[in-house]
Amino acid sequence: TGAFDFTDHSHRRYNPLTDSWVLVSPHRAKRPWLGQQEAPFKPDIPEYDEKCFLCPGNDRATGGKNPKYESTYIFQNDYAAVKTDQPSLKETGDKDSLKNRLFKVQSVRGNCFVICFSPKHNVTLPLMSKDDLVKVVGAWQKLYTDLSKQAIEEHKPFKYLQIFENKGTAMGCSNLHPHGQAWCLETVPSEVSREFKSFDKYKAANHTDLLADYVELEMQEKTRTVFENDTFLVVVPYWAVWPFETMVVAKTKIPNITSLNEAQKRDLASALKILTTKYDNLFETSFPYSMGIHQAPLNATKEELDHSWLHLHFYPPLLRSATVRKFLVGFELLGEPQRDLTAEQAAERLRKLDGEIHYTANL
Amino acid sequence: TGAFDFTDHSHRRYNPLTDSWVLVSPHRAKRPWLGQQEAPFKPDIPEYDEKCFLCPGNDRATGGKNPKYESTYIFQNDYAAVKTDQPSLKETGDKDSLKNRLFKVQSVRGNCFVICFSPKHNVTLPLMSKDDLVKVVGAWQKLYTDLSKQAIEEHKPFKYLQIFENKGTAMGCSNLHPHGQAWCLETVPSEVSREFKSFDKYKAANHTDLLADYVELEMQEKTRTVFENDTFLVVVPYWAVWPFETMVVAKTKIPNITSLNEAQKRDLASALKILTTKYDNLFETSFPYSMGIHQAPLNATKEELDHSWLHLHFYPPLLRSATVRKFLVGFELLGEPQRDLTAEQAAERLRKLDGEIHYTANL
Ligand SMILES: O=P(O)(O)O[C@H]1O[C@H](CO)[C@@H](O)[C@H](O)[C@H]1O
Ligand SMILES: O=P(O)(O)O[C@H]1O[C@H](CO)[C@@H](O)[C@H](O)[C@H]1O
Repeated sequence: TGAFDFTDHSHRRYNPLTDSWVLVSPHRAKRPWLGQQEAPFKPDIPEYDEKCFLCPGNDRATGGKNPKYESTYIFQNDYAAVKTDQPSLKETGDKDSLKNRLFKVQSVRGNCFVICFSPKHNVTLPLMSKDDLVKVVGAWQKLYTDLSKQAIEEHKPFKYLQIFENKGTAMGCSNLHPHGQAWCLETVPSEVSREFKSFDKYKAANHTDLLADYVELEMQEKTRTVFENDTFLVVVPYWAVWPFETMVVAKTKIPNITSLNEAQKRDLASALKILTTKYDNLFETSFPYSMGIHQAPLNATKEELDHSWLHLHFYPPLLRSATVRKFLVGFELLGEPQRDLTAEQAAERLRKLDGEIHYTANL
Repeated sequence: TGAFDFTDHSHRRYNPLTDSWVLVSPHRAKRPWLGQQEAPFKPDIPEYDEKCFLCPGNDRATGGKNPKYESTYIFQNDYAAVKTDQPSLKETGDKDSLKNRLFKVQSVRGNCFVICFSPKHNVTLPLMSKDDLVKVVGAWQKLYTDLSKQAIEEHKPFKYLQIFENKGTAMGCSNLHPHGQAWCLETVPSEVSREFKSFDKYKAANHTDLLADYVELEMQEKTRTVFENDTFLVVVPYWAVWPFETMVVAKTKIPNITSLNEAQKRDLASALKILTTKYDNLFETSFPYSMGIHQAPLNATKEELDHSWLHLHFYPPLLRSATVRKFLVGFELLGEPQRDLTAEQAAERLRKLDGEIHYTANL
């Protein structure tokens, strides 16, 4: 009955970072789509919007006022998910009671920030200059450094800084103004701690870093590489879940964004610009995604530094066009994540796309 | 600084079924929402739609024709994610190579089915009679029995039957016609296998079933109970992620849907009717969700039966109104799932809602 064909036959691939599986059903992309359509992107947005909470000089939702900032701008989230001060949570009752056995709970303190990427309301990462993107990386670095310092000098409950961006309404972004967020917690969040656990396990078994080996292997295979520069490799991971998911991974051991030297910092800015330009060019739209930076905890111990390896994950939902996304729902939530094209197919499409000229330049 | 208040202070709760955490930030529900609005539900839908692939007597997407069915109707998915026959996947290369170490892959065979709940295009579970819902449970039972038999008698690659429903466009449903799906795989999917692992671990440590203890505890506490009947408890789990997530859990050990006796079968139908009526009444809309049944594998071994306990998970996305949903995006995907109200707050609202009379009856 012929040979197994990865572009046609269903298979599962294992994600060694999170110890999970994804079901790949590449033939399923052929089915018609009659479900929800995402709102098409409207290109005629003004550079300044007087009703925007993030534009320079404007009032914010809870009363503050933004300065007339000219580059990036960091402020504390007006609706922070975690706060620096709250009463401590005391353990109650019998340690062996059913309740203490089944209901584990921890207090979580921390702080949340918004990072405006630009004063211009109508740009996005791919539409900004490389110099401006270097400033965005600089803002992330500054936050990482400041919070590390506050943790030590002011005993603030800051252990892990999760930097992320939700871009586009499809990914729950509630304001078009180009911005990301950073939530700083007194604990390492689950996804990150799952990765650290895997890195430790891999190192104990193989005496090398999982991501070092992974980068080496992807650079040999080349079929999932989107592009690379001196410092970073951009791949569709072998175990990608989201249709055009990518990982921007340091080629050598760089524990966190503040360990980047000037050239490496420019390489990160450049990787971000090329990747997001390719994304926009894929379906000729402002491509939605959630992305985030995984790196060392703040003020990392020697052990923590040892298993930290800077990388970014991009999770974009679009599957077929500017308006048709992948839904990770019933089977995915109850059974196992499922995708409709192979990682190699996604990588090939992204690789071939222009990463220099944004599609709107030709309009 | 006062006492710790679960309705105001941020905390994490542990989910012992999937070995994961959720960040609860109850004060965050106050922030304004300027993001995506879900399409409001349109009530004037015809009982029969000539363009629907699922209505009785109509042509299907790939050429077949539906019979003029009068109750439930099961057929093989025209775009199945897994198939019964495909070439086997041979292991290649050196077992210790980097590739075999980092890229684990398995072939997956199986079959996928669609279950139409009713011939009427414009009903949903809460709008169907209890007798009709008993027939839906009967259709699930029949599928479970038939596939178990085919696995044994025809050596079909069927090990686990994941029954689920994606309801509403917000949860990726592409056809309004009331229907669910069932994907049958030759392996136990990750989410289910994660639960089985937890059940085994708990039993080894405590010599009881995790869900037996959990039901007992929830029935003592009552604060997360939505309602119950003789056979099932409906709760917002202590560790709920989705705003109005619920679990319909058997009160005593019932391994799978075919082990329900007639009275228990009616109790399941009744629980489904009451829960989905409450859901619709919450925001006076046709409430979207993904739901699925977790139960014993097909033809379970003694060990497999031993850790199986019938329960259903409902994952509904709506947070504040018929048009404003929760997005599990940046922080949730990269860091840790986060919710904006406590499980107790959600349960109280659901508990107080009418579960008998659907809001449309008063229109
Ligand atoms: O099979 P459907 O209804 O076309 O598709 C829906 O459910 C599937 C199973 O959860 C998902 O993989 C799809 O992304 C979703 O759109
Ligand atoms: O903080 P925002 O942008 O208002 O909110 C968005 O990002 C958060 C962090 O991923 C999510 O919890 C929210 O559901 C989402 O809408």
